[in-house]
Parts: sequence; structure tokens; C-alpha cells
Amino acid sequence: MIIILKAGSEEKDAQYILEKIKDAGLEPLYMPGVERIVLGAIGDERVLATLHLESYEAVEDVRPVLSPYKLVSREVHHQDSVVSIGKSSFGNGNFSIMAGPCSIETADQIERSAKMVKDAGLSVLRGGAYKPRTSPYSFQGLGEEGLEYMAAASRKYNLACISEVMDVHEIDTLSAHVDALQIGARNMQNYRLLQAVGQQDKPVLLKRGMSASVEELLLAAEYIYKEGNHRIILCERGIRTFETATRNTLDLNAVAYLKEKSHLPVIVDPSHGTGVRSLVIPMALAAVGAGADGLMIEAHPNPEQALSDGQQSLDEEDLGRLLEKLQIFVAAAGKTMN
Amino acid sequence: MIIILKAGSEEKDAQYILEKIKDAGLEPLYMPGVERIVLGAIGDERVLATLHLESYEAVEDVRPVLSPYKLVSREVHHQDSVVSIGKSSFGNGNFSIMAGPCSIETADQIERSAKMVKDAGLSVLRGGAYKPRTSPYSFQGLGEEGLEYMAAASRKYNLACISEVMDVHEIDTLSAHVDALQIGARNMQNYRLLQAVGQQDKPVLLKRGMSASVEELLLAAEYIYKEGNHRIILCERGIRTFETATRNTLDLNAVAYLKEKSHLPVIVDPSHGTGVRSLVIPMALAAVGAGADGLMIEAHPNPEQALSDGQQSLDEEDLGRLLEKLQIFVAAAGKTMN
Amino acid sequence: MIIILKAGSEEKDAQYILEKIKDAGLEPLYMPGVERIVLGAIGDERVLATLHLESYEAVEDVRPVLSPYKLVSREVHHQDSVVSIGKSSFGNGNFSIMAGPCSIETADQIERSAKMVKDAGLSVLRGGAYKPRTSPYSFQGLGEEGLEYMAAASRKYNLACISEVMDVHEIDTLSAHVDALQIGARNMQNYRLLQAVGQQDKPVLLKRGMSASVEELLLAAEYIYKEGNHRIILCERGIRTFETATRNTLDLNAVAYLKEKSHLPVIVDPSHGTGVRSLVIPMALAAVGAGADGLMIEAHPNPEQALSDGQQSLDEEDLGRLLEKLQIFVAAAGKTMN
Amino acid sequence: MIIILKAGSEEKDAQYILEKIKDAGLEPLYMPGVERIVLGAIGDERVLATLHLESYEAVEDVRPVLSPYKLVSREVHHQDSVVSIGKSSFGNGNFSIMAGPCSIETADQIERSAKMVKDAGLSVLRGGAYKPRTSPYSFQGLGEEGLEYMAAASRKYNLACISEVMDVHEIDTLSAHVDALQIGARNMQNYRLLQAVGQQDKPVLLKRGMSASVEELLLAAEYIYKEGNHRIILCERGIRTFETATRNTLDLNAVAYLKEKSHLPVIVDPSHGTGVRSLVIPMALAAVGAGADGLMIEAHPNPEQALSDGQQSLDEEDLGRLLEKLQIFVAAAGKTMN
Repeated sequence: MIIILKAGSEEKDAQYILEKIKDAGLEPLYMPGVERIVLGAIGDERVLATLHLESYEAVEDVRPVLSPYKLVSREVHHQDSVVSIGKSSFGNGNFSIMAGPCSIETADQIERSAKMVKDAGLSVLRGGAYKPRTSPYSFQGLGEEGLEYMAAASRKYNLACISEVMDVHEIDTLSAHVDALQIGARNMQNYRLLQAVGQQDKPVLLKRGMSASVEELLLAAEYIYKEGNHRIILCERGIRTFETATRNTLDLNAVAYLKEKSHLPVIVDPSHGTGVRSLVIPMALAAVGAGADGLMIEAHPNPEQALSDGQQSLDEEDLGRLLEKLQIFVAAAGKTMN
Repeated sequence: MIIILKAGSEEKDAQYILEKIKDAGLEPLYMPGVERIVLGAIGDERVLATLHLESYEAVEDVRPVLSPYKLVSREVHHQDSVVSIGKSSFGNGNFSIMAGPCSIETADQIERSAKMVKDAGLSVLRGGAYKPRTSPYSFQGLGEEGLEYMAAASRKYNLACISEVMDVHEIDTLSAHVDALQIGARNMQNYRLLQAVGQQDKPVLLKRGMSASVEELLLAAEYIYKEGNHRIILCERGIRTFETATRNTLDLNAVAYLKEKSHLPVIVDPSHGTGVRSLVIPMALAAVGAGADGLMIEAHPNPEQALSDGQQSLDEEDLGRLLEKLQIFVAAAGKTMN
Repeated sequence: MIIILKAGSEEKDAQYILEKIKDAGLEPLYMPGVERIVLGAIGDERVLATLHLESYEAVEDVRPVLSPYKLVSREVHHQDSVVSIGKSSFGNGNFSIMAGPCSIETADQIERSAKMVKDAGLSVLRGGAYKPRTSPYSFQGLGEEGLEYMAAASRKYNLACISEVMDVHEIDTLSAHVDALQIGARNMQNYRLLQAVGQQDKPVLLKRGMSASVEELLLAAEYIYKEGNHRIILCERGIRTFETATRNTLDLNAVAYLKEKSHLPVIVDPSHGTGVRSLVIPMALAAVGAGADGLMIEAHPNPEQALSDGQQSLDEEDLGRLLEKLQIFVAAAGKTMN
Repeated sequence: MIIILKAGSEEKDAQYILEKIKDAGLEPLYMPGVERIVLGAIGDERVLATLHLESYEAVEDVRPVLSPYKLVSREVHHQDSVVSIGKSSFGNGNFSIMAGPCSIETADQIERSAKMVKDAGLSVLRGGAYKPRTSPYSFQGLGEEGLEYMAAASRKYNLACISEVMDVHEIDTLSAHVDALQIGARNMQNYRLLQAVGQQDKPVLLKRGMSASVEELLLAAEYIYKEGNHRIILCERGIRTFETATRNTLDLNAVAYLKEKSHLPVIVDPSHGTGVRSLVIPMALAAVGAGADGLMIEAHPNPEQALSDGQQSLDEEDLGRLLEKLQIFVAAAGKTMN
């Protein structure tokens, strides 16, 4: 339920109503705007009805939240949210890029990756330490050792870093080494993990599941938001379809749709979204057109020798070409690259 | 098979070899380039082998065409093809837009649509006279009467026009009234129709089937090209996936992929590709990023009263906003809008 | 609209009402039942309303047809329809099998196929003369020559035969040689072709499109039925999904659903539905469980040498094993194999 | 790698080779057969090559395991595995059914469900205590309290019971109350959870992910098997496709394929696989035809009042009708229902 207060209402009017909402066992939201104060009450609609909020002096209007997701919807929060990782900001006109290898392989490889990212003028390094691999016989990542390598490389080049968390047990280890937590596509509906990262004090990158609808993605984000962590970045990374020419089908419709329905920043991963190196640049530019607030790019100092996803990783030269073209498109979109 | 002639070879060398290819019952192709003459021979690879083309004096190299499609592939024809409809060109840096209503409804409606298209600075009017409708009880289009209305409106505003052909029997009627023929998604694998438009002297807009792979789309184009009609524009218009938030999933990966593999121009239909008016503009801009050579847009003077597809049609104001933003993105892509 | 007459109403009451329906420009249906006479009126609901049929003496109840398809729905026609091709019947407890090669290749090949089908105790031979092939460079079928071979083989072994029609122009040639017309998956929404076979006096086998919803399949059948040809057999042949282990995903949910919603017989093609010879038998048995009224099976005297679809064709021994197991399952389903 | 020993080889020959395999850091497998002893060595193929196993006296042949999954493949283990939960067995001719409500709602509801299952002659009760719900605002299950209710009801009626585990943390609680652990579709690629249940001494029911390929399902099973838990039952429960007439598309091709490629038992969940009560019975019968070793059925004493999935749950009468028909089909398939 959205409660719009009359013009001229004061914070104490709002506090009084928020108390009532809280006493009724519901979740109160305080959203002061430029012209009006807006309040939210999330929970059982029948209980809400018993509060008769529309009869309060200070209340101008009470409207239901129509979407199944509440806290992450634009109905409840009109303005674009901005989420920052290190010096990079995402949302509300800010466009940023995270780049780095699929897997952390050696101290040297991640150090060279960090240098490449720094030299390209970027400030967030990505790299996987705990890898969700389809086969138990594939390289499973270096685990905590890898995180230590990445943390050292990030410090050396003054970068922020992000890595994937696969299980509730791993959160503490991850949090000790990285600046942001990634939930991978395979775990988008691992609700215990969503609830656990919802209680962390780190930004969360939430990747869309391989066949998750955009509504399911927003409801997964709602699980995190509801626990108190509001620093969520959504990520479109390609969906499963019948098409086999590309590894996945990058669904940019979803980006435009998510930007319309939610206030959360949305980024695009054209590396997994295509699975083909030569398609990464055009699809990165396309993402800008669709309204994305940033990108996650797989980049490797030596893609041919990568232990995973080499065929879709950019090398230093590709990354330079991408950024050159992106500058122009991000400017065309009226956004600022940082 | 691609036959590359030595530097300094002359047309008569080429003609001699082309004769041999033809005599063997194969399809000869003459592709003079800036530095070298390249020839093609399409047909049974075993017959080709018996020609021993590599032993000819003028021949430098003979290479197989690896893709299943031949004539439409970049292997055979490196340069972007340009296809024009009226004053609008598509491909090789030229970006154009076709716009108009889903269905021709009345003489007045198509006249006002034509005016809207003209006023927007565009030069190709689209409109359906023969409508492939899922239900036999839905409006099936005005048929030839509609074509006459559209032809009159196009003449009045000096526009070119395009309409869909659903059956071999309708080609003559269509051809009498329109400047280009459209093959709809449902007929992408109607091979008799493809062969028949392949024998026409009109540009053909070939829409991707709802669940056709990009390879199947290129092979459908090959059916047309092989019959002698080389003026083919490919169109991505959204594919079927599990996602229901949008009518279709616009597959821009396909655009980037098609531009890499084929020399034919590729346009995007964000109206069918999303099915949602508010998503048309962002996805049109995204199409530019992905490398599209143009757009097909559903626009209607009064979308609320449209007999079909009103929910995805732009009105005059929307169309203006789209074109304003497109100018900037097309320039960012280094292309010319015409 | 369904009009249920009062008990004791006579045919002349029905005729009177049917006239009124016809005069209003609607399509009248006469459906005498054991206890009651039921009438139908298909067309513009607003015109129907002006007739005030509920006020007629003989009318007990007037109900709308809720499904978008009308004539093919069980709402309008409760009883299973039975469609026969030669001595084989499909529907209402009758289970039959059509078998034969994907393509007619030579007079000898189709003759041996016919013998195999006859020896197996079956009575409908299938074989393709006009082949819709993805590539223009693949074998396109023998055309009329092939039909002549098949007709001769069918006569020799006293079989009925069925073949695919790809275009309106081919209907007459097909009809001269075969007992039933097949509309292939790629042409399920070729509406001109549907309308044309709707005017023929031959049973029509309508295959579901690769990504057609079951509702779209029923609406395609409605196009045929509406033209006057009521002898329609629906065929599930696998849909496109992300799964690549099998050529298509055989959607047996669709069979159970179609049997619930429509009175038309439904058969299954496990050959295309799996694309894998070893899976044809289990999926044929599964089809019986789901409620299918028959099967279409690709069988070839020598699958290794087939010009198309050899990998999914049964040989004589496989066909024998299939029929042996089918006997048991068809009996378990309480149906009669003929 | 599969190592086939010569006829007449003894266990000590096998042990000698298994030691060598183990010493090389690979995973040894001992698979004595009726005629021959077969050994397996799973791990890095290059290390395997250095062992030169083919040169050993007792070794007749060494063959690679071609499939990406190893331990769960029929290449390694020809015979059907049998997995039992309580008195019910699955695989190698044994066909069993698990039934019960989607969610445990109250002590009374699960008690009545247990009675219904018992009265139907079945011996495994299913019920969810930890529910993975798309929305955080939906009923999330009773947790441990629910497990206690189910355990009590199972004891009262002498049934075994199974429930879903969503997170590594919950395994101990689940294990204290249930006889088998279920991994739901959303967690099929939650690899930490797979590894953890692989170390339990309870049978595991592994459901296919909504858009997991059958190869991915087998690799997920491999994660469990590799940890030492070999009592795995695979479950097809419907995949995501474009079709909206049914909740999911039940992929019975997958059942036939899995039975061919793997020795593990495979069951089908037609309740989630269709999402429509009236389609559950035909699709259960179809599953038998496709080769399934059992079923999981949602059944509720009062489906209209179920807190989740009521629209697809059978009541007592439906369950009776299902079992009556199943008897006939399971017999037709030459299997034993227990």
C-alpha cells in the first residue's frame, strides 16, 4: 500500500502513521519526495485495511501496489536508485563497467587482469573463486586462495572487486575479501542465499536465471531488499531459447522492461549473453540503447589460455576498442561513464 | 566454392572459367573486387572437384564455402549489400525506417498515416492488406481495395510502399501496387512463396519466423537469392521464448550475428519484437547498437482505434520522439539516416 | 453461440431458427443429439445478440462459446469425431497408424515401403513428394513423379496413401494421387493453404507448427473446418525448446489437452518428435497413455540409405517390435487398433 | 576409462589395478559382473594414459567413457540401479508412487493426507516443509514444525516420507525426520547442496531444473554420486517452453533418453509437469509408456483449500481412479507396482 500525504505534511505526521503501520505488524517505508511525503506499508492487505489510513487527517490518498514485487518497484519508489561499488556508480544517469576474467587462475593472471582493467580506466575488477561448473570434473575455482590473489591485485591497482557466492557458508569468506557479492544465474532462486546476502552490508549483483522471467527476477530481488540490503544491481546475462548460434539469447527487452518497472540499476553481461567474442562489442552498444546502467565484461590477458570461457573473453586490445565505442554511445544516451 | 584469381587477371580469364562452371551444370558467380576478381561456383561439391579449377593458370586459390548458405554469406560476398526501396537505402552505412499501420483500415486512415510518415521525414510507408491472422474470425485485411488506398496515399505524399504477400496467387496483385514485398514470419519457410518472390523484380523484406534459427533465416534468404532476386532485406522481429512480460523476445544477438555472417542488410521490428508501446523506443536504439541497417515501425494516427496491434503502435508524437533520439544513435554508430 | 432446444423440439423448429441465423449473415450449425437438439451460430457476437434467440419458444438455453476456436471445440460438439483414411479410423476409440518413408525416392523404394507397411498389417502409407527442406541445396522430392510411384505402390498393396501439400497450386496434383492431404509444420499458419484444403473433399492431417501454441493449432484447424471440410486429424510432432539431446521436444501434454478441448482426432509423430530411432518406440507407447488416436511413423526398408531423416526411421524389424508393444498398450487404453 | 578384465580374472587382479588407479590420484571403481570384472577409473585422462593399463596381463580392453557424465552412465554401469524408499522400490522393473500435498499445512491436514495415501495402497508420503516460493510474501512452509507433523503422520500409518531440502544448513533437521531428501528444480545446480546430500546416507530425489538440459541433469546427479551417495532417483517435472496452455511442458522424451543413457531410476511428476488436474492422469499413463520407474503425485484431502498448488492436486477419488488405470498400464509395460 502506498500512502500519499497532503502537501504541507510534516515528518512528525509521517512518523505517527509509520508507528501505526509498524504496530499492526506491517513493514513501514518512509519515502520523502520533493513535493510530497510518500509512505509505504508492505504486508497482509487485510490487516492494512483495518488501519483505515485514508481517514487520517494528513493522508491524501491510499493506493495498492499492483505489482507482485513491492519494494523494488517504481510504484513504491519513483526515482532511479544509485548503487556504487568503489568509485563506480550504477543508475540514475551513471554508467559503469566491471571487467575481469571468468575464473581467478593464478596470482599472476589476476594481477595482469587487474592492470588491464586499471589501464582501461575502469575501477571494478571481477573474477570467480568459487565456480558453479556444470561438470564436477571441470576446474572448480581456487576458492579462498583465489580471493586472496584478487584482493591483493585490487589493492595494488586501487580497484574495487566482486566475486560470486554460491552458498550461505561462503558469505563470510567472500565478504572478507571483496567489495560486492555476485549471485549467479544458477542461484537466482536459491532463496536461503538471497535472504543471507540481504543481511550483508555489501552491494549485491543479482544475475537473472537462465530461464527466469523478469517478474521472477524482481521477486528474487525483493527477497534481498526485504531483508534490509537495498544495494542491489540487476544483471541480464542471456536466457535459454531454441537458438544455438549463440550460447544464450541476450534479452534486451528485459532491460527496457526492468528499467520501466523497477528503480534498481540494471546492467548487462554481453559475454555470457552471446558466448562469442566478436558479438560482445555490438551487444554492449545495444545494451546502452536499451537503457542499461552498466556492463559486466569478461576480459582476460590471454583468452586462448583461459581455464574457462576463453571463447567469449576480450583481450586488452578488444577491451580498448569496446571502451572507445562505448564512450560515444553512453554520451548519445545522455549518461555519464565513470 | 570460391575461386580467387591472381592479381592482374582479366575479365576474359574469368569468363573462360565461368563457362566451364556453367557447362558442368553449376551456378557461376562473378564478383569483381578492387584488388582481385573472385568467382563462385555453387552446386554439387563432387562435380566441382572434377573441374580441377586449382590447376588453371589464372587461379590463385580455390576454397570451399563452409556455411550451409552460400550466396548470401560473407564468405562469397565480403562487402555489405545495399538494398533500396524508393529513396531509402539499407546497408553499408545507410540506415532507413519504414513506418505505418499494421493494417490498412480505410482510405482516410492510410492517407493520414502516409501524411504522418511524410511529416516525420521518412519515405517508406508500410501497411497490411492481406493479414495472416491467428483466428479466422479476426479482421483479415481489406485485400486489393486496401492496396489501392495505400498506393493512392503513397502517390499523394511521394512515398514508396511495402505490404505483405501471403500466397503465390497474390504476388501479381501486390506487385501492381507496392514497391517492395514483405514475407511475414509465418511464411518464412513457405518455400514456394520464397521461390516465387525470388523471380520478381522487387525488393523483398524477409521476416524471421517466430522460432526460426538464424541459420534457417539465411537459408530461406538463399531460396530467394538463388532464383535471381538479390534485393533482400532480413528482418528480426522477435522470437518465441518462455518470457510473457513482452509479446516476443527481440533477439538482437541475431542482428549482430547476421551482420557478421551475411552481406545482406538487416533491419529490426521493435513493434512486434516487444508488443509494448513504451518499449519500442529503447529497443529501436538498442537495434542501432547491435548493428541494424534500419527499422520497421508500427505507427498509426490513432492507436487506440487500430483494428490490430494498437497496443504496440506509436502515434505521431511518439514517432517524433523516436526519430529525434535515433538521429543521435545512428550518428554514434557512424551511419547515415536517409 | 450454442442454442439448446427444449426436449421434444423437432427438426422443423431447428430449421426455422437456423434460417434466422443464416439470414443474419451468420454460420448456422445443426447438431442433433440423443436427448436434445443443439444448434450453433458462429460469427459476430453483436449481430447474434440482435436475434434474441433466447426468446424463441423452442429454445431452452443460449450460451456463448468461450474458447476462441468454435467449430472444433468440444463446447460445440461433445462427441469425439471419427476421421477415416481408407480402412483406418482415428478417434472415438479407434487407433490407427500411418507409416512410410520421409521421402519417396524411387519406384522400388516406395514399393518395398508399401510391402513393409502391408506386411505389418497397416493400411495407410505415407511418403513425401514435395519436400519442404531447410536448404535449397537439399533433395527437394520427386514431385508428381513420386506421387505416381506411391499411388502405384498403394494400389498394388491395397493401401490408402497420404502426402504433404506445400502450396495451393499443388493441391490438384496431390488430390489426383492420394487419399489424404498433409499440412506440414512449416505451413500450419499458411492461411491460404488452410482455406484451400478446407474446400477439398479429402481428409486433412494438420501438423502442429514448431512453435505453435495448442490454441494456434486449434485456430488453424478452425480455418479448415470453417470452409466446410470437417475431416481433420491433428498431429503433435514435437516443439522447439532449449533441449538439444533430442531433435524436438514431443509435447504429449498437448495431446491430453487437445483431447479435452476438441472433438477432433489427435495423432502423434514420434519420429520427428524425437529425431532418434531408439526413442520412437517408448514415445509411441507414451502417446497411447496421453490419449492419442493414432500415430504417424517414419519407416524405411533401408534407413541407412534414406535421402532424408534416416536417423529417425524404423526398419522392418523395428516396426514389428513397435506394433507388438503397441497392441498391448492400445488394449490397456481400451481402444481398438485398426 | 572402463577397464574390462579377461575372463577368469580374479578379485586380486582387480585390486592390484585399483590400487594403481588410486595411487595415480584417480577415482577407482569396482564393478564385478556375471561374466567379466569391469573396473573404472575416473579423472584426468592424461594421467590415465600414463598408467598404460592396456599392457597389464589381466586386462582385455580399455575404453574411454564417452559421455561427460561418468558414474551415472550406462557405459560404466549397464544394469538398472534400484533405489528404495521404505517399502517402495524404483528401477529395474519396479514401479512405485510417492503422493501427498505440496505443503504441510497443519497436523490434521498431513494426517488426513497420510491416511489417503495409505488407503490408496501406497507407502511413500510427500510433503513440503521448507518451500521455495517465487514471492517472499507467499506462504513459506511450516519448517521443522511441519516435519514433525509429517513424521508423526508417517509413523501412524507406517509410511516412509520425503521432503525438500533448500540449503546445506537444513540437511540435519530434514534428515532427523524424513526417509529421503528431495532437491527441487530451482536447486538442481546448487552444487554445494548437491555435494552435501552426496555425503548423506539417505536416498535423494533430484528434480530436473526448469530449463536444464538432460545432460545437465545427469551431471548434477554425478555431483551427488561422486561424493559417495549412489541412491539417486531422477525426476522429470516439466520444462519451460513458449506454451502457456499448461504450466510446464512435461518432457517425456527426456525420460526415454535418461533410461537409455543412465542406470539411475527415473520418475515423473505430472502434477507440476502439467499444472492442470485433469491432465495428471493421462500424463501419468504416458509416463509409463515412456519408461518411467515411478511417479510423484500431488494429492490433498481437500484441494480447493490447499495453501499451494491446489489446481493441480488430486483428491482421494482422483487418486483412486489414477491407480486403477495405472495398474493396467504398468502391467502392459511388464513392470511390477509396489
